[in-house]
Amino acid sequence: MAKPTTRDRLVGATAELFRVSGYHATSVKAIVERAEAPFGSMYHHFPGGKEELGAAAITTSGLAYGDLIDLFFGDDVTDLVEATNAFFAGAAWTLTESDYADACPIATVALEVASTNEDLRRATSTVFDDWITRASARFVQHGIAPDQAPRLARGLIMLLEGAFLLCRAGRTTEPMADAQAVAVAEVSRLLA
Amino acid sequence: MAKPTTRDRLVGATAELFRVSGYHATSVKAIVERAEAPFGSMYHHFPGGKEELGAAAITTSGLAYGDLIDLFFGDDVTDLVEATNAFFAGAAWTLTESDYADACPIATVALEVASTNEDLRRATSTVFDDWITRASARFVQHGIAPDQAPRLARGLIMLLEGAFLLCRAGRTTEPMADAQAVAVAEVSRLLA
Repeated sequence: MAKPTTRDRLVGATAELFRVSGYHATSVKAIVERAEAPFGSMYHHFPGGKEELGAAAITTSGLAYGDLIDLFFGDDVTDLVEATNAFFAGAAWTLTESDYADACPIATVALEVASTNEDLRRATSTVFDDWITRASARFVQHGIAPDQAPRLARGLIMLLEGAFLLCRAGRTTEPMADAQAVAVAEVSRLLA
Repeated sequence: MAKPTTRDRLVGATAELFRVSGYHATSVKAIVERAEAPFGSMYHHFPGGKEELGAAAITTSGLAYGDLIDLFFGDDVTDLVEATNAFFAGAAWTLTESDYADACPIATVALEVASTNEDLRRATSTVFDDWITRASARFVQHGIAPDQAPRLARGLIMLLEGAFLLCRAGRTTEPMADAQAVAVAEVSRLLA
């Protein structure tokens, strides 16, 4: 694999900082330090500054996170209920392994910018739409009616996002287990 | 009703600013301007500065928001499915009425501080626990088994929070309608 470029390192560092503490708490100084990049390189690659880099980080980390949908609900799935259980169990495992820091890469930023920065809001919306499109296609592949699949996709993503919020706030994975139970009940209902 | 005190105005202004753009984007200057309070009054009432005021805003606005649970799921409810529909429809209405600004008063801050400020994290966790306790008691009152009620309460709150996130990001209430459908299916399943 090719060595990451300075641009890649800047985007990656920004995404990591956004995930843990969001947009406004992430300084350009912290980004270039984490990326081990010269300060000037940031404005060379991103003349629009933190906002332009932020949009790139949202898009890149969001689309990469969407790959998890294809991983958990991929071609080799034979039981959608089992896959749904594995998806939420995986989220709970990641939370505890990361001391409740590693959750959605874009949710914090999405809420911070929703009413205050139209370009960044659109970047987050595009990522959520990508996840819903991918999950819908996978759910149809595994037996959900096409007219129900987008609703189920949004339902599972909302449960996951709500669970990340309650789990991180309470430092417990109990809400994730509850989200999993609701998700499995909904999948079972739509498969019946 | 008594005229709000300077302290009340500071807490209220902080809560309003947190709701729209979160903790880090809210400056002390913006708070005192919105509260129409002298700059020094902030440190008189909150010697711990923005953090102490932030904790008070989270607690005050969070507990007030919890009153909506008692409003929508109160003593006069005769049909829990109908009440659940009204609860999510009310959330969708508030979103459109406020141009997608008026959603959860503490979610943005909760995600911003979860891994970075233990005192504020605890304040958000206490609010979520209050909502779950209140909703659980109401659900038992309206026919849900006591051992299922906390799980249902967390499920509905997670769906609501996830829907606020997707609705604000996409500037659409469609996800809220989907969250409502999942919530109603879950309530119906547990009442059966």
